[in-house]
Amino acid sequence: MLVEEPMELLRELVQPNDTKLVLVVLDGLGDVPTPPWNETPLEHAKTPNLDSLAKVSALGAIEPVFKGITPGSGPGHLALFGYHPIKIEIKRGIMEALGMDMEVKPGDVTFRGNFSTVEEHNGKLIVTDRRAGRIPTELNRKLIERISSEIKEIDGVKVILKSGIEHRFAMILRDPQKGLSDQISDTDPQKEGKPVLDPTPLDDNPASKRTAEIVRKFLAKVREILRDEKPANYVLLRGASGVPHIPQFPEVYKLRALAIATYPMYRGIAKILGFDEGKLESQDLEGQVKLLREAWRDYDFFFLHYKYTDKAGEDGNFLAKVRAIEEFDKYLMDIVALDPDVLVITGDHSTPCIYKAHGFQPVPYMLKANGVFGGYPAFNERICLLTGELGIFPAIYNMSLMLAYSKRLKKFRA
Amino acid sequence: MLVEEPMELLRELVQPNDTKLVLVVLDGLGDVPTPPWNETPLEHAKTPNLDSLAKVSALGAIEPVFKGITPGSGPGHLALFGYHPIKIEIKRGIMEALGMDMEVKPGDVTFRGNFSTVEEHNGKLIVTDRRAGRIPTELNRKLIERISSEIKEIDGVKVILKSGIEHRFAMILRDPQKGLSDQISDTDPQKEGKPVLDPTPLDDNPASKRTAEIVRKFLAKVREILRDEKPANYVLLRGASGVPHIPQFPEVYKLRALAIATYPMYRGIAKILGFDEGKLESQDLEGQVKLLREAWRDYDFFFLHYKYTDKAGEDGNFLAKVRAIEEFDKYLMDIVALDPDVLVITGDHSTPCIYKAHGFQPVPYMLKANGVFGGYPAFNERICLLTGELGIFPAIYNMSLMLAYSKRLKKFRA
Repeated sequence: MLVEEPMELLRELVQPNDTKLVLVVLDGLGDVPTPPWNETPLEHAKTPNLDSLAKVSALGAIEPVFKGITPGSGPGHLALFGYHPIKIEIKRGIMEALGMDMEVKPGDVTFRGNFSTVEEHNGKLIVTDRRAGRIPTELNRKLIERISSEIKEIDGVKVILKSGIEHRFAMILRDPQKGLSDQISDTDPQKEGKPVLDPTPLDDNPASKRTAEIVRKFLAKVREILRDEKPANYVLLRGASGVPHIPQFPEVYKLRALAIATYPMYRGIAKILGFDEGKLESQDLEGQVKLLREAWRDYDFFFLHYKYTDKAGEDGNFLAKVRAIEEFDKYLMDIVALDPDVLVITGDHSTPCIYKAHGFQPVPYMLKANGVFGGYPAFNERICLLTGELGIFPAIYNMSLMLAYSKRLKKFRA
Repeated sequence: MLVEEPMELLRELVQPNDTKLVLVVLDGLGDVPTPPWNETPLEHAKTPNLDSLAKVSALGAIEPVFKGITPGSGPGHLALFGYHPIKIEIKRGIMEALGMDMEVKPGDVTFRGNFSTVEEHNGKLIVTDRRAGRIPTELNRKLIERISSEIKEIDGVKVILKSGIEHRFAMILRDPQKGLSDQISDTDPQKEGKPVLDPTPLDDNPASKRTAEIVRKFLAKVREILRDEKPANYVLLRGASGVPHIPQFPEVYKLRALAIATYPMYRGIAKILGFDEGKLESQDLEGQVKLLREAWRDYDFFFLHYKYTDKAGEDGNFLAKVRAIEEFDKYLMDIVALDPDVLVITGDHSTPCIYKAHGFQPVPYMLKANGVFGGYPAFNERICLLTGELGIFPAIYNMSLMLAYSKRLKKFRA
């Protein structure tokens, strides 16, 4: 029943307070009963800490967009932060570029890139592996170095490349004349066995035509450079985007906000929304919880992102998802020990192991704060969906709940 | 979750019938588990009649605005009557003036007033008590009499004052030339320790500037009159408003509608929506139920408002709230005995005792009519939230439910 945007009213009602809010996103947390266990990973996992928290928390389940819609990580996170997940779009290019710590300037156009494997058939490039067998990160670095040294600019537009993990990279096109546009189609056909798509302008703006032309020239050069490489003999580009104009989270909600995430994409989303980032000593839960503890006094809102639940779900690996949940459970009490006024534990979407992909199912949601009913025997999908006091609700209301329970909202009218 | 406005469709679908509908609003009914009982007042109260009704009623919980939003009484009631609680606004001035039985004419501007205590610091008036220690109603009357005799008009605009209970009063500015505007800011800073605000025009209309000027002159004169009074040495004004244009309840729903309320504010809201008012023999539940009985044949829809649940919640007095609920429970069977086709018992918002203020929590909702599931052991928050057959839903749908169960809605299309 997602309909209106709560943000406008919240912006009017927020009031400062010294309460602390923590949002833990266990990526892809939600799941469905899976044979042969006929349980979800969250039901199957031994989670004494999550379960003890359920005794004193409010439970419910969230729908990121609306019933039946499977969200990407962008809309999934936007909704949790109170942004309209359909009307507001953060494209892949900018998420990756920012997440990889590239500096993006106004007028730049960013792209998400994949090294890939293609075969020529009748003059067409057919994608045989979109990820080039997930080449080692080290090889990725070498290839990007080579491409960067051979392609510095095209038609006066600077080409900036940066390696990511495995097959991933990000690209920025920077025009000193600011004559570029992000209205360019993807070249990634999203399926193996299909031909690479031609970058085409998506509107009548001459800048879009020009940008498409530059991308075409770039790809032709890359193909020459990589022709004899194996398996990474080409690249796919998608998610062209400039710097989006999105209301800034800290300003809208009057919250000093810190993102504690290890993956580029989630770091990118958080940066676009205006979150600060802290320096992680280690790229794991231990490092994340340590940063949370150290930054406790300097921020009001903490977004802690944990990726491994989703990764296991995407791999269809039930027991790996169980382990990922159990691993988080071990660190939960370190978070609880900080005594946040509101602690929410949920996911950005479901990733059912039987799908090996994101799903549309509601995501279990637990909110710990004063003044809830609580009394639940455990934290899992079944209990959240069937007996949660918060019901099943659109994820976009997460922020109004967190603000309300942390006493950061004034009364609405007399 | 609040979504769209059902009123337009309802208006199209309503059909006459001779069914009787009763809406009982136990103001501020909803609450949360409260130490040391770890129960809500509704759970703690001995309510044999409410509980027996739960066996044959549908239960659920309503959200007046949307998750996390704490509504004032205005939006809380508007939603119950099927009006959009954000888009439709009834301001404080007109609610109070009508509730105090003042006659309001088109072109008038009404204000809600408080006697208050101020101190002068460096030429500024600092509010030290917004309610002047809730002065006795008798003193209020005397002061209003004095002010009224000394200020009859300002710049040709008539000043009409009326005493309320304790520190409250209402004011009407009436200009024979109809040259006034209600786009004037409040002078009440809403917090003690802050300076009184200057009445300022909220738009470019010259009438707004003129009205602000008249209010300024009025306040200067009042200050002269009250300077040596203790503790009521000044007044605060808020909620400037003309007669609002709001769809009339009896016309929209084709219901002859009677309001049975004792407090000015709720009587005011009901009048603005077009409810009739009956004459109460006594300002208590006995008087209210008596009027309900006597008016039974002449009306279709009865709105019965009970204030004491909210009052106890605002005082943070758990046991007083328990008693207020038990007091209502005693009269419940007198209402049931009239055999209404639909009887709804709910609140306009929560007023958790631990907050001593309105809250955002969903409000328990009970609907007695033919064709429900029922079978609940009691009527309280936990049972309504966790097991209610109506789920948790926006309060704006109360009217469509009441109309549907009373067979006053046609089928929607073929």
